[in-house]
Amino acid sequence: MSKLFKKLIGPLVSLFFLLNMTSTGYAETTVSAEIGFIFNTLLFLICGFLVFFMACGFAMLESGMVTSKSVSVICAKNIGLVSIAGIMFWMFGYNLAYGIPEGGYIGKFIPWSDASKIDTGYADGSDWYFQMVFCATTVSIVSGTLAERIKLWPFFLFAAILSGILYPIVMGWQWGGGWLAVAGFSDFAGSTLVHSTGGAAALAGAIILGPRLGRFTKSGAATPVKPFAASSIPLVTLGVFVLWLGWFGFNGGSQLAIGTATDAIAVSKIFLNTFLAGAGGVLAAAVTTRLGFGKTDVIQMLNGCIGGLVAITAEPLMPSPLASILIGAVGGVIVVYGTKLLFSLKIDDVVGAIPAHLFAGIWGTLAVPITNSGASFGTQLLGVVSINAFVFIVSFIVWFLMKSTFGIRLSKEGETKGTDVTETGVIAYAIRD
Amino acid sequence: MSKLFKKLIGPLVSLFFLLNMTSTGYAETTVSAEIGFIFNTLLFLICGFLVFFMACGFAMLESGMVTSKSVSVICAKNIGLVSIAGIMFWMFGYNLAYGIPEGGYIGKFIPWSDASKIDTGYADGSDWYFQMVFCATTVSIVSGTLAERIKLWPFFLFAAILSGILYPIVMGWQWGGGWLAVAGFSDFAGSTLVHSTGGAAALAGAIILGPRLGRFTKSGAATPVKPFAASSIPLVTLGVFVLWLGWFGFNGGSQLAIGTATDAIAVSKIFLNTFLAGAGGVLAAAVTTRLGFGKTDVIQMLNGCIGGLVAITAEPLMPSPLASILIGAVGGVIVVYGTKLLFSLKIDDVVGAIPAHLFAGIWGTLAVPITNSGASFGTQLLGVVSINAFVFIVSFIVWFLMKSTFGIRLSKEGETKGTDVTETGVIAYAIRD
Amino acid sequence: MSKLFKKLIGPLVSLFFLLNMTSTGYAETTVSAEIGFIFNTLLFLICGFLVFFMACGFAMLESGMVTSKSVSVICAKNIGLVSIAGIMFWMFGYNLAYGIPEGGYIGKFIPWSDASKIDTGYADGSDWYFQMVFCATTVSIVSGTLAERIKLWPFFLFAAILSGILYPIVMGWQWGGGWLAVAGFSDFAGSTLVHSTGGAAALAGAIILGPRLGRFTKSGAATPVKPFAASSIPLVTLGVFVLWLGWFGFNGGSQLAIGTATDAIAVSKIFLNTFLAGAGGVLAAAVTTRLGFGKTDVIQMLNGCIGGLVAITAEPLMPSPLASILIGAVGGVIVVYGTKLLFSLKIDDVVGAIPAHLFAGIWGTLAVPITNSGASFGTQLLGVVSINAFVFIVSFIVWFLMKSTFGIRLSKEGETKGTDVTETGVIAYAIRD
Repeated sequence: MSKLFKKLIGPLVSLFFLLNMTSTGYAETTVSAEIGFIFNTLLFLICGFLVFFMACGFAMLESGMVTSKSVSVICAKNIGLVSIAGIMFWMFGYNLAYGIPEGGYIGKFIPWSDASKIDTGYADGSDWYFQMVFCATTVSIVSGTLAERIKLWPFFLFAAILSGILYPIVMGWQWGGGWLAVAGFSDFAGSTLVHSTGGAAALAGAIILGPRLGRFTKSGAATPVKPFAASSIPLVTLGVFVLWLGWFGFNGGSQLAIGTATDAIAVSKIFLNTFLAGAGGVLAAAVTTRLGFGKTDVIQMLNGCIGGLVAITAEPLMPSPLASILIGAVGGVIVVYGTKLLFSLKIDDVVGAIPAHLFAGIWGTLAVPITNSGASFGTQLLGVVSINAFVFIVSFIVWFLMKSTFGIRLSKEGETKGTDVTETGVIAYAIRD
Repeated sequence: MSKLFKKLIGPLVSLFFLLNMTSTGYAETTVSAEIGFIFNTLLFLICGFLVFFMACGFAMLESGMVTSKSVSVICAKNIGLVSIAGIMFWMFGYNLAYGIPEGGYIGKFIPWSDASKIDTGYADGSDWYFQMVFCATTVSIVSGTLAERIKLWPFFLFAAILSGILYPIVMGWQWGGGWLAVAGFSDFAGSTLVHSTGGAAALAGAIILGPRLGRFTKSGAATPVKPFAASSIPLVTLGVFVLWLGWFGFNGGSQLAIGTATDAIAVSKIFLNTFLAGAGGVLAAAVTTRLGFGKTDVIQMLNGCIGGLVAITAEPLMPSPLASILIGAVGGVIVVYGTKLLFSLKIDDVVGAIPAHLFAGIWGTLAVPITNSGASFGTQLLGVVSINAFVFIVSFIVWFLMKSTFGIRLSKEGETKGTDVTETGVIAYAIRD
Repeated sequence: MSKLFKKLIGPLVSLFFLLNMTSTGYAETTVSAEIGFIFNTLLFLICGFLVFFMACGFAMLESGMVTSKSVSVICAKNIGLVSIAGIMFWMFGYNLAYGIPEGGYIGKFIPWSDASKIDTGYADGSDWYFQMVFCATTVSIVSGTLAERIKLWPFFLFAAILSGILYPIVMGWQWGGGWLAVAGFSDFAGSTLVHSTGGAAALAGAIILGPRLGRFTKSGAATPVKPFAASSIPLVTLGVFVLWLGWFGFNGGSQLAIGTATDAIAVSKIFLNTFLAGAGGVLAAAVTTRLGFGKTDVIQMLNGCIGGLVAITAEPLMPSPLASILIGAVGGVIVVYGTKLLFSLKIDDVVGAIPAHLFAGIWGTLAVPITNSGASFGTQLLGVVSINAFVFIVSFIVWFLMKSTFGIRLSKEGETKGTDVTETGVIAYAIRD
């Protein structure tokens, strides 16, 4: 056993400190332009459908987390928001982000149209598809937090504004070559651009909207008490597995190319690191809740997985496997304590999206310089603060304006009956055994 | 704001009228035969597994739509029918469709066997796999409509006939180069061949079988009343998301090739249009039910998505994005009013498959000439009428013969107890909270 | 009709006896090393994410099969075990398997690190990812059998030992080029290496752990009686469809290459055979239970699908389609009678994993010589006995040691309350309709 220990401890210790990997690239590729074009397009399409499916993951996660009187409306919100986001991203979003001048702040208000050329390296439609599902993901993050008390159509209006204007502006700042990209900010697949953006918009909404009726009368109760118990843990689990699956597309596709051996090696490394960060998040949340609160909280394990995945999203390529596990693990711990923090602040985040997406996204983005020597902590901080502040403030104003005019919250009577009866007239479950 | 409006209105108006897109193709490809062969095979395998997964989507959609005493049998039907369809398609179907003489009516009754050659452009097995899952989809459409009262094994017998004989004949008429293809009919991925075929077979069955006991005593009640309430809306939602995911394979794979840049651009455009048509269907159904009936009906939104997707399936390549949204939106509206129509005719379609697959399929097929100048309305009508008439009439006869001999309907006592207790002896839910 | 019969009977009879297919390969490929490298890497990544998703399939299958007081913990176990397996497989497993000397017994205890070179033919990270999800699958098989009475953390410890040490040793014997590979053993994708390994570890655990309280008081009752009724059949169905989907990756990816036309043809054939074997398993279980016990048992159909898939996994390439159907069908029948056998032995396998994975895995591995002339029955038997004996005995010792020290079983009170209340403090369902 001690021999085995010796065998292990050496490489582990060196791996622990050697947190970033240098890839053995191939200076020149032998792949022709057209074949590379096909490979890259395939990457966008395959990773795109995986990310598309994340919309289903969010729908299931949120359906399982809300109480059984608000499940039908969560389903309506999720199928509706992805539809709205896609149409807005075609009509405004794509060119608002990619039509931005170099180093600039905002692009053009014109619809996407196909401009495929072999020189661009991929079919334009496949890029639209891949970027559009990122946009939809951003909106999906918001819907769960505000569940059980928000009105359906005001939510849809916010979804249109977020997907058509806010997200594309932020996206343009970095991925469109805008001012943040020029400043040297680094966010590989969107810990901040996608996840914190969704989380910050959700936080603004949760503050304006206020908590569900009766949520905080029994203050300090960290475990969900019966009246607010999650309606279905297997649906939450299904959702998280689907999200984890989709994340391979989310991070892997963000390499943006697989037409050379170098890119194929990079995408593979990203799959591996993405897996390990999710695993780290799960286990960190399991250990934290078991040791800290006595029971192994399955909900925190599942949300810890999301936290770990969000954390690695800012830089899934450079970290070593061990670094990925650790970055994910910190994300998982952040989810556990972030949930407690929100609870103590009496901010009602029904599904825990703010800790998992906003808090873990901040961590992941600030952690980039640890493994990527091309990034600086200062610039990372600049990106985190500017994007989160912009999204939070504008969202806050939008939520506030909607509240002050047509209103965003159900009547007390409507909320007590449940959103399903009030808004869609379809009860979620009719099970007799 | 008016400046913004001006910026938008121009391109939107032109897009509205410019409904079809011309693709910037590449006359000659530089990709070698073998590499093209691998790319095309990959396309069939990837799109094939996405379409395979649609069988799961149907199983979940139908499980959620039936009452909780008929869920186990719906599961048995769905896992059983895909198995039957696959075996029949190997034994009869493939060569019945592809062994058809040019311009002919029927192929050969011999099993599939591997005839892969590099010149065919793809592995024969991958094509079988891709076509087989289309066949299974056709049968999946039937199972939901007839739920809660049909006997299990007669349904399986019909599934064998539909997948082994009826669908392959119709498939051969068009995709095997039979008489409809020669006549110039256009159905890219099967709005009519797959979806209307399934819907017409279901309609014939629903008429012969009659409605569930007590379904129409309270005439005119469009909203499902408690005794017939859908058992689980999240499962319906899961099913629709899985179907939407699968549809990228369904339509994208129907390009049949991705071995050139031109094909890669085409597949990408198909993904994009397929997404937008589904989105159009969702939002059209949401708006229609909210404005028309007061509440935003989540079931109609979900079925509207299917309607939008079915509608774009006849021509997912040529339409502009805006045209795709509109084609899908009309599909969504058709689902809403088609459901009401069936209800008023006292035809009991448990899951709404007839409006979504038959009605929206007719719309989509007839709409092809709007965006594809190569198609004519007359020939489209010929295809729609001939296929639907053939499938409806033969199915009607088969259902009638089965009813007259061994019977297709459960006893009153059996139906009252529920199919689960009567047929499989396994209750679907045993949940105590 | 008799003419039709003649047309059919000829080819069918010849197919029945001609059970193996010879592939029309292409001696030389024209694909360059780098392009082949990208194709192979893509195959590993795509098939890898399909197999990853099988973890979700197991989670859903098991969630549906257990009683509703043990669902949350099954979810925690499944998300936890895949995390543990992945980290262990990075830390120990990969090099324990692949670092084995030729013809040897055990590899090296060092973590995986990236050694991608164009000559290896694929990105090292993609191979790790693909092999890791196989390792996770092995552990997933164990969790269901022991449900409802095992303690969570001892299970996690066993998961670490199985994924980090036991499975990698067995994997190295064959796929690492160890002594079984040298002896000529044949197990294409792991009927024995993965499925029997999981099943044997589960059997050892079930014996040491003992049955659930009250499970066998009513001896001989084959149908699950109410107190032990499966909590949700649609979730079981979802799980099986997800597993079937994943199996295309499991078997297809085990061709290990798709960079030549020959390999593309082989992968396609594997998809086709894998589909048909699952279908054969479903229908065989349906017929067996209908004729044998009066009702068409949906649970056996679903588990029969798994049995069929496990059976074809040892050799999914060489069999003809008909042979695949028959191999799968025997797997399905084995599941039905294997379940009865375990019941009569009073071994409590909550989800039926032992018949589906261990018994059907033995059948599939021993059946290889029927269609693959390169395999001998004697060597297949050697592999089956040595692997199953090794895994069963070591697992038995590990379970026994854990039982004798800190204990592996919940208290009577804890078990009666249910694992969810006792271990995770989160009830699985809170549904009010």
